[in-house]
Amino acid sequence: MSQYQPTPADKFSFGLWTVGWRGVNTFGDAVRPPLDGAEAVRRLADLGAYGITFHDDDLVPPGSDAATRDAILKRFRRALDETGLAVPMVTTNLFTHPVFRDGGFTSNSRDVRRYAIRKVVRNIDLAAELGARTYVCWGGQDGAETEAGKDDRAALDRLREAFDVLCGYVRDKGYDLRFAVEPKPNEPRGDVLLPTVGHAMAFINELEHPEMVGVNPEVGHEQMAGLNFAHGVAQALWQGKLFHIDLNGQRGVKYDQDLRFGAGDVKEAFFLVDLLENGGYDGPRHFDFKPPRTEDTEGAWTSAAACMRNYLILKEKAAAFRADPEVAEALEAARVAELSQPTLGAGESLSDLLAEEIDLDAVGERGYHFERLDQLALDHLFGVR
Amino acid sequence: MSQYQPTPADKFSFGLWTVGWRGVNTFGDAVRPPLDGAEAVRRLADLGAYGITFHDDDLVPPGSDAATRDAILKRFRRALDETGLAVPMVTTNLFTHPVFRDGGFTSNSRDVRRYAIRKVVRNIDLAAELGARTYVCWGGQDGAETEAGKDDRAALDRLREAFDVLCGYVRDKGYDLRFAVEPKPNEPRGDVLLPTVGHAMAFINELEHPEMVGVNPEVGHEQMAGLNFAHGVAQALWQGKLFHIDLNGQRGVKYDQDLRFGAGDVKEAFFLVDLLENGGYDGPRHFDFKPPRTEDTEGAWTSAAACMRNYLILKEKAAAFRADPEVAEALEAARVAELSQPTLGAGESLSDLLAEEIDLDAVGERGYHFERLDQLALDHLFGVR
Amino acid sequence: MSQYQPTPADKFSFGLWTVGWRGVNTFGDAVRPPLDGAEAVRRLADLGAYGITFHDDDLVPPGSDAATRDAILKRFRRALDETGLAVPMVTTNLFTHPVFRDGGFTSNSRDVRRYAIRKVVRNIDLAAELGARTYVCWGGQDGAETEAGKDDRAALDRLREAFDVLCGYVRDKGYDLRFAVEPKPNEPRGDVLLPTVGHAMAFINELEHPEMVGVNPEVGHEQMAGLNFAHGVAQALWQGKLFHIDLNGQRGVKYDQDLRFGAGDVKEAFFLVDLLENGGYDGPRHFDFKPPRTEDTEGAWTSAAACMRNYLILKEKAAAFRADPEVAEALEAARVAELSQPTLGAGESLSDLLAEEIDLDAVGERGYHFERLDQLALDHLFGVR
Amino acid sequence: MSQYQPTPADKFSFGLWTVGWRGVNTFGDAVRPPLDGAEAVRRLADLGAYGITFHDDDLVPPGSDAATRDAILKRFRRALDETGLAVPMVTTNLFTHPVFRDGGFTSNSRDVRRYAIRKVVRNIDLAAELGARTYVCWGGQDGAETEAGKDDRAALDRLREAFDVLCGYVRDKGYDLRFAVEPKPNEPRGDVLLPTVGHAMAFINELEHPEMVGVNPEVGHEQMAGLNFAHGVAQALWQGKLFHIDLNGQRGVKYDQDLRFGAGDVKEAFFLVDLLENGGYDGPRHFDFKPPRTEDTEGAWTSAAACMRNYLILKEKAAAFRADPEVAEALEAARVAELSQPTLGAGESLSDLLAEEIDLDAVGERGYHFERLDQLALDHLFGVR
Repeated sequence: MSQYQPTPADKFSFGLWTVGWRGVNTFGDAVRPPLDGAEAVRRLADLGAYGITFHDDDLVPPGSDAATRDAILKRFRRALDETGLAVPMVTTNLFTHPVFRDGGFTSNSRDVRRYAIRKVVRNIDLAAELGARTYVCWGGQDGAETEAGKDDRAALDRLREAFDVLCGYVRDKGYDLRFAVEPKPNEPRGDVLLPTVGHAMAFINELEHPEMVGVNPEVGHEQMAGLNFAHGVAQALWQGKLFHIDLNGQRGVKYDQDLRFGAGDVKEAFFLVDLLENGGYDGPRHFDFKPPRTEDTEGAWTSAAACMRNYLILKEKAAAFRADPEVAEALEAARVAELSQPTLGAGESLSDLLAEEIDLDAVGERGYHFERLDQLALDHLFGVR
Repeated sequence: MSQYQPTPADKFSFGLWTVGWRGVNTFGDAVRPPLDGAEAVRRLADLGAYGITFHDDDLVPPGSDAATRDAILKRFRRALDETGLAVPMVTTNLFTHPVFRDGGFTSNSRDVRRYAIRKVVRNIDLAAELGARTYVCWGGQDGAETEAGKDDRAALDRLREAFDVLCGYVRDKGYDLRFAVEPKPNEPRGDVLLPTVGHAMAFINELEHPEMVGVNPEVGHEQMAGLNFAHGVAQALWQGKLFHIDLNGQRGVKYDQDLRFGAGDVKEAFFLVDLLENGGYDGPRHFDFKPPRTEDTEGAWTSAAACMRNYLILKEKAAAFRADPEVAEALEAARVAELSQPTLGAGESLSDLLAEEIDLDAVGERGYHFERLDQLALDHLFGVR
Repeated sequence: MSQYQPTPADKFSFGLWTVGWRGVNTFGDAVRPPLDGAEAVRRLADLGAYGITFHDDDLVPPGSDAATRDAILKRFRRALDETGLAVPMVTTNLFTHPVFRDGGFTSNSRDVRRYAIRKVVRNIDLAAELGARTYVCWGGQDGAETEAGKDDRAALDRLREAFDVLCGYVRDKGYDLRFAVEPKPNEPRGDVLLPTVGHAMAFINELEHPEMVGVNPEVGHEQMAGLNFAHGVAQALWQGKLFHIDLNGQRGVKYDQDLRFGAGDVKEAFFLVDLLENGGYDGPRHFDFKPPRTEDTEGAWTSAAACMRNYLILKEKAAAFRADPEVAEALEAARVAELSQPTLGAGESLSDLLAEEIDLDAVGERGYHFERLDQLALDHLFGVR
Repeated sequence: MSQYQPTPADKFSFGLWTVGWRGVNTFGDAVRPPLDGAEAVRRLADLGAYGITFHDDDLVPPGSDAATRDAILKRFRRALDETGLAVPMVTTNLFTHPVFRDGGFTSNSRDVRRYAIRKVVRNIDLAAELGARTYVCWGGQDGAETEAGKDDRAALDRLREAFDVLCGYVRDKGYDLRFAVEPKPNEPRGDVLLPTVGHAMAFINELEHPEMVGVNPEVGHEQMAGLNFAHGVAQALWQGKLFHIDLNGQRGVKYDQDLRFGAGDVKEAFFLVDLLENGGYDGPRHFDFKPPRTEDTEGAWTSAAACMRNYLILKEKAAAFRADPEVAEALEAARVAELSQPTLGAGESLSDLLAEEIDLDAVGERGYHFERLDQLALDHLFGVR
């Protein structure tokens, strides 16, 4: 289906840790060989992607000496140069090593918190050097299994401190870089700090430089809490905080599945693409998924390609949906645009409003015709219109 | 157990709609007779409660003429006067009547939005007159079953407009009244606007008078999203936004159960009381529960009394937990207080921090002894220490 | 789209309580006027349905005198005769009336249990007379909010007793009628007896006449527990127990949504239709949904029509998926048919098997190519192949 | 608290993989050193446990040569002999190695299925030799992420074949060993075959020797589906299928937490112990938990000890609850025992029943007083009576 062939203009990016995931989890050993960063760059470029992203440790194995690190970075850069792939976002691994077993920025151990900040700062320079504009912070180990062991308010103080320090560093250096907080409700910790997009945005407001920090919502992370992802993204857009986005799939409230984009809640994926395409978001469409352990290396690449394909299919459908005259009529019948009218008239006073009466019986009978509208959306999703 | 006998000093309040719930739901008819507001006041006072709260329509049946309304209010006030029961909070029913089938403040219908604001304003005067300090807004019908039918960003605009209008009214009138937004993830709508405490606090930040608006978290509403309630409340306290609280019980991610307080996640109830008692919250402990349909009227009162009893039991346990020397030792071993130390030293620069090294192997082996601490909490919960 | 116009041959049936749902729930009053049974018959016939089903009380309001009942039944039958609509299934309302507040067949009250059996028996005669072949039993009030209040094993004894009595009655009467148990995990009770298809099938095995009793799985009921509906239906087919099916939509683990079929988990709906069409099920495709409260009466019919439309769309897609040569190739690559080969050869002994060796490294590298296969399914779902 | 000191008479057993869990999961590396089997035996004996259980690969690392295996087993047996610890149950690891990436008994690969059976058979001899009476089968990799890739009915055929082969082997050998199927809804696979206790019991009924196969329910596995664990166990007891049990903790619908027993849903833990102690189960109380990654080795043992302690605390409370005269009175008021009375009288015919009338209004007003009863249970749980 050549019409769904991605190009860099589509701004699709992938985490190195996604296509390179080896399949280790609580119940299983690695099923795929390691993936070299430069190789990943070339494969992604071949598939039509725009960018690659990474955690520090994805690219340079922890404990590498300076020479090894230099060699890896050199090969990586060469691959970037040759392919034109961008590095729009970089992030830090503050979870895999045992030192982070109680978190990074909010570990009860001060030495760990200090190391966490250091680990980020060291990687920020590389991020800036590679041209990244977004620096994602995911604090999945920042949480607790027992409320007794974590003073949440102190944790929020430390988290604020960390972001204030990091923002200060970026300002001092003059980097053109913004931070994006990635919320998650749980896993690997029983409960994670800043569990949803909402909690993260509320937190950001307490920072010294709130304008430098936004959110990086992930489809599955919100859906793990049974939340409607498109609604959360809409609020982030409304608050001017959608700095980045992680696209993947999840089938309901359960463990973090990281399915390929499109393979979870198909209908919500449709409305999400509709929102991203028509809602003013112009950042990368970043896939943060895990090819299932049943796949070999080639299967992992098939899965990656399908993420982009599904986005493009849904983009086409969203455009057709919005262009459909019957949809326009159904939107009208559903009074959707009426919600954009201010509730009070221009210059209207509350006393005017208070004087008004409503015919409760008549208005109570009013139907909203949402089922017709939703079915038109499904018809477009199914491609039967 | 006379030691768990509540007094007004405990600040326990109940919604009139809770003890008066008749048991109508999707699958069943009313099982209990109506409860008169004045009768509720007397029974609650007898049980040792401090306050009663109500939706406008709980107290005065919709459609009542002025004389009926006056008579009801007169009887209600007399009961308040005679018992000394307070009305610390009032709220509005913007959900039961068919006109609200697509929401109140964010209905697609402008006339409904106007009526919703009017309905609140009319009730605010009564709230102020009765001495309420908090006005709760729950927008459970403000949501959607189809993303196509609701422009979320327009909905947030309208919600902001409504709160700005209401805050303006309260300021104009000079009432000593603050608003508390009550979040809920879903039910009765498929997805509800402002689904969590986090989303509500992020929203509030966009208002003209954010200082006048806080949150009213409800135990079950956060737990319906699988979120840790104590963590959410801690963030609300941290942000200075815990204006009111709804206590009840919920057993996990499912329909809104509104169990009596203590009857859901018992361990989280313990940590919640620990937090409220030691975290600086001094507002009412408000019970928003529904006596199960299996109860007759006396059973409903038994259920209400047990809400208070459970709070007092847990309060006693939380105090004992905090006073236990072995707990103090376990908190030390778990490095809980260390999280309150700033990560950077006073006046320390980032470059100092960057020069530091960590012994990853040694620090990686460090255990946090949370299991011991959590077991001590359980021992206190079980009353075996 | 005339190609998705249903006909009686499609065997679509609807509950009278679905299209007739007035919208009462915990948080809202009725939004639509009552629907007459005969009117429902005519509308459903016009839409192309095959059958209508009902609870006793849906059709004849409780408390009606004999003359009223006769008149209603006469009008209903006439509508059936005139339209040719079938009554393939009938069921009993053992939940709405306050007497059922602690259940029907397993109420702690023996007089209620006796009444429940009586209420079913009285309706079975009507069911048989109208030609129904399936009698559904949903025991949604048979559950508990406290484990202390319900002796589960006694409850299962009573449930067995009830089914043994009912099966005995049907056998005595010589009716050509089978029972179908409808499982549900919770709501309206905190936990419901026989919460899943699995529990129901395990229970049935203990009956005197297990061959007379099967299951009636409902999409949303299994999905409320986060279970894969198609997998549950497959097991029911495997065990010869899929006597009936309730089709609707649900978006994850939350309250019982009863969305129209197709409007929940779209991908699972696709695989479900694929299974029903190719798995040997030839019973009615019964829709048990609730038109959202936002709809007026016409909107409710739009919603009903869309249930059938979605089934037909998915049926067409499932057929195309199975006929696609690339899918055949992908199924082969995924070794799907290999699972139908017995693991031991014909006549092979275990000692032969034990002598065999496996090359763990080589076999461990084998990929299953499920992502390609799943993407082909999505492509068909999207209509882009 | 010496009164909660376990002894072998309490029949507490632990999986070697539980106390020996090193903490590897999707997001983190190992945090604890390996634990030797003989060391585990000695520590568990010191703590007062009765038994130890293991997967084949827990005890003998895969790929060990015969001499290594013999040496390990010799040391393990010596520790058992010296401590008197029993091996009441043994199981097989059919999930960690990459060959099992698509399952064991139901892998699409026939060679893997053959290997899986072989791996079990080889371990059954050891189990029998060590005196185990139960052989647990957990098929967590037997599932799917795409319905297209797994023919469920073929999978059930193969699962039946595997159990028939294994039962045949045990019968041929004359071992006194029964199988227990362990259900789980998901994780590590998107959806797992036999997701609940109910599905497993229904499946067992199709086997050649259903009497040789029962279930091994795990607290967290049922709670991951939002199901009430005590209810599921009650049905298993009712069906004579509770062959073994896995005790641990889970806080709601999310990833598999494997918390220590008592640390999840405390109230359900109370009712579970009440049921096990009073419901006729006399098998091991087996803990299948994972000490959190925050714990070091000593913390892991603290966690293990607390599992037993919590069971004993709850056992004492359950006994006190059942002995409390006020509870007896409340049970009477709740009509709990009335459910054990047959609904029809001895020799009563259905026609007698049909002639009876009920006073709907009067019976509809009847309350069940469950709240009082449930609060008495909470009072006992809190230790305030």
